[in-house]
Amino acid sequence: MFDNKESRTNLSELGEFGLIDHLTRYFEIKRTSTNIGIGDDAAVLNFEGDETVVTTDLLVEGVHFDLSFMPLKHLGYKAVMVNLSDVYAMNAEATQITVSIAASNRFPVEALEELYSGILLASKKYNIDVVGGDTTSSTAGLMISITALGKAKKEKITTRSGAKANDLLVVSGDLGAAYMGLQVLEREKQVFKANPNSQPDLEAYSYIMERQLKPEARKDIPELLQALEVQPTSMIDISDGLSSEVIHLCKNSKVGANIFEEKIPLDPTVISVCEEFNIDSTMVALSGGEDYELLFTIDQKDYDKIKGNPNLTVIGHMTEENEGMHLITRANQKIPIQSRGWNSFEDANDEE
Amino acid sequence: MFDNKESRTNLSELGEFGLIDHLTRYFEIKRTSTNIGIGDDAAVLNFEGDETVVTTDLLVEGVHFDLSFMPLKHLGYKAVMVNLSDVYAMNAEATQITVSIAASNRFPVEALEELYSGILLASKKYNIDVVGGDTTSSTAGLMISITALGKAKKEKITTRSGAKANDLLVVSGDLGAAYMGLQVLEREKQVFKANPNSQPDLEAYSYIMERQLKPEARKDIPELLQALEVQPTSMIDISDGLSSEVIHLCKNSKVGANIFEEKIPLDPTVISVCEEFNIDSTMVALSGGEDYELLFTIDQKDYDKIKGNPNLTVIGHMTEENEGMHLITRANQKIPIQSRGWNSFEDANDEE
Repeated sequence: MFDNKESRTNLSELGEFGLIDHLTRYFEIKRTSTNIGIGDDAAVLNFEGDETVVTTDLLVEGVHFDLSFMPLKHLGYKAVMVNLSDVYAMNAEATQITVSIAASNRFPVEALEELYSGILLASKKYNIDVVGGDTTSSTAGLMISITALGKAKKEKITTRSGAKANDLLVVSGDLGAAYMGLQVLEREKQVFKANPNSQPDLEAYSYIMERQLKPEARKDIPELLQALEVQPTSMIDISDGLSSEVIHLCKNSKVGANIFEEKIPLDPTVISVCEEFNIDSTMVALSGGEDYELLFTIDQKDYDKIKGNPNLTVIGHMTEENEGMHLITRANQKIPIQSRGWNSFEDANDEE
Repeated sequence: MFDNKESRTNLSELGEFGLIDHLTRYFEIKRTSTNIGIGDDAAVLNFEGDETVVTTDLLVEGVHFDLSFMPLKHLGYKAVMVNLSDVYAMNAEATQITVSIAASNRFPVEALEELYSGILLASKKYNIDVVGGDTTSSTAGLMISITALGKAKKEKITTRSGAKANDLLVVSGDLGAAYMGLQVLEREKQVFKANPNSQPDLEAYSYIMERQLKPEARKDIPELLQALEVQPTSMIDISDGLSSEVIHLCKNSKVGANIFEEKIPLDPTVISVCEEFNIDSTMVALSGGEDYELLFTIDQKDYDKIKGNPNLTVIGHMTEENEGMHLITRANQKIPIQSRGWNSFEDANDEE
């Protein structure tokens, strides 16, 4: 897409306006709700009576990503996914994003082109318009701030607070793969440091590495639920790990929950790599994070509508609030669910 | 507002969720268009048939602000203003913002509280809801990314591209003060470095320092234009300096412009401080930036409606595109207008 991959153009050669024009020239406006996109003081949108959904996420180099194994194109793609996932978790349709980037002068224009090519790919695949942004220098490292907008009919909007006791707890896809992908990538980074000529055979790990490097937001799930005529009672996306998200749903809905360990969906690769790393796979699913699957509750009457769907797994049910939140193990033990979600401040402290 | 100003709480003590809860607990939802604010995957808004306006800006420590003379509360306030100014420049009403912050561990929780107290003050004064955000650690420095939303009737929206030849060019307030305020602050920083016991008397500079440290976005101008029944033909906010903004209006509207030097509104303090610093005040107004005034064009038939209004000054008129863009000096010389706007990448290079 961008020519001259081998060249190195300093950011200052283009200037701020030139850089934005340069990086955004392949972005087209396709949404009927986008009246004015990039190029004025602000974008102008019209959602014609639908509810507008807004979410924002910030990704910081050295905290949220490691460029030594994260290609910039993948990073751009993932940064969009992280935001769209939040829109889909409202049971809404993602429509537009704004993209702000701060990059130090160690990044040539060509690096930002790579980053934007991932953003462009994501925006095409997920049918969203890029309608604004800001590009500036930073004194250290790379930072990406994306805000996503979406829309939904008022009656479709699904918050974290509508779950009722006896509702079924459902998860899309499978869990823990993104975390195990990160473990493999970090191990290979150490191997590479020790022996830069090593030629690792990573084919056995391709699924979990892709889940870490190029996750997909579940655009299909709100569409599927609509087709199945299922209105979830509550929903959240799994960015910090299953246990953290279950706690969010329970606290916001003022209910408890029982999750059955044997029901948690795991890809066979996750099970085998957990054995290789000697990590408990249930712990990985509960605390791993970055899966960007959707976790939601439905009324029991809707069970027949989702039963047998390969995208959806019932992993438990909600209870009265005073019953608490528990994992029921394969050995039929009842263990309290605790938050061990990813904490960026702790992580940063650990590195000091 | 926040207790225990003297204490120092590490960011990691609160954790990510705790920190967001802590910092946003004084934010109230007041707008009828805000259905769901902070606390779910996304905010939910409804603009009931109005156009939605979206803009985003990123402020980076060491590039856009210097904490050695910029108090954190002022920084929070200014970061909101920078974004609201873009909404007002669409002739729209600002309604909501999202706030994302990355801070290194050198900032205790109390520092972020100061920052948020400025954001809270701005949101109250400008009647906007804070509906979302993200707070994370950074490996170096402080970064603030704000996205602002607003609304307007479709026929009120004013872009950069509607100016016609013979339209009058109008500016709100006065120009150049923010830039001269920065010159004074940087000079005092050097004085302080040389002699930490110096007690500078800065009262004579209070207006220009306030324009730099605590600018106000021109919320009143779209309201005034509405009251005067004036629909501007094009509009932009002055963030990079008058010349840069005139060029944007001309290029987007495919017209030329004549600006009259004698008409450029300058505060008396700016004139006297420019003499003190031996800088040409016209150059400061043209290239200084950060004034956050509004620059717009109106049809000549609307002149009588704005004539004599102390908030508005006619500084020139638009011409046919082939006549180019010129400053007509007091000596009646015609000088081409060139962009000498603020370029964050050049600035960062200069510092290397």
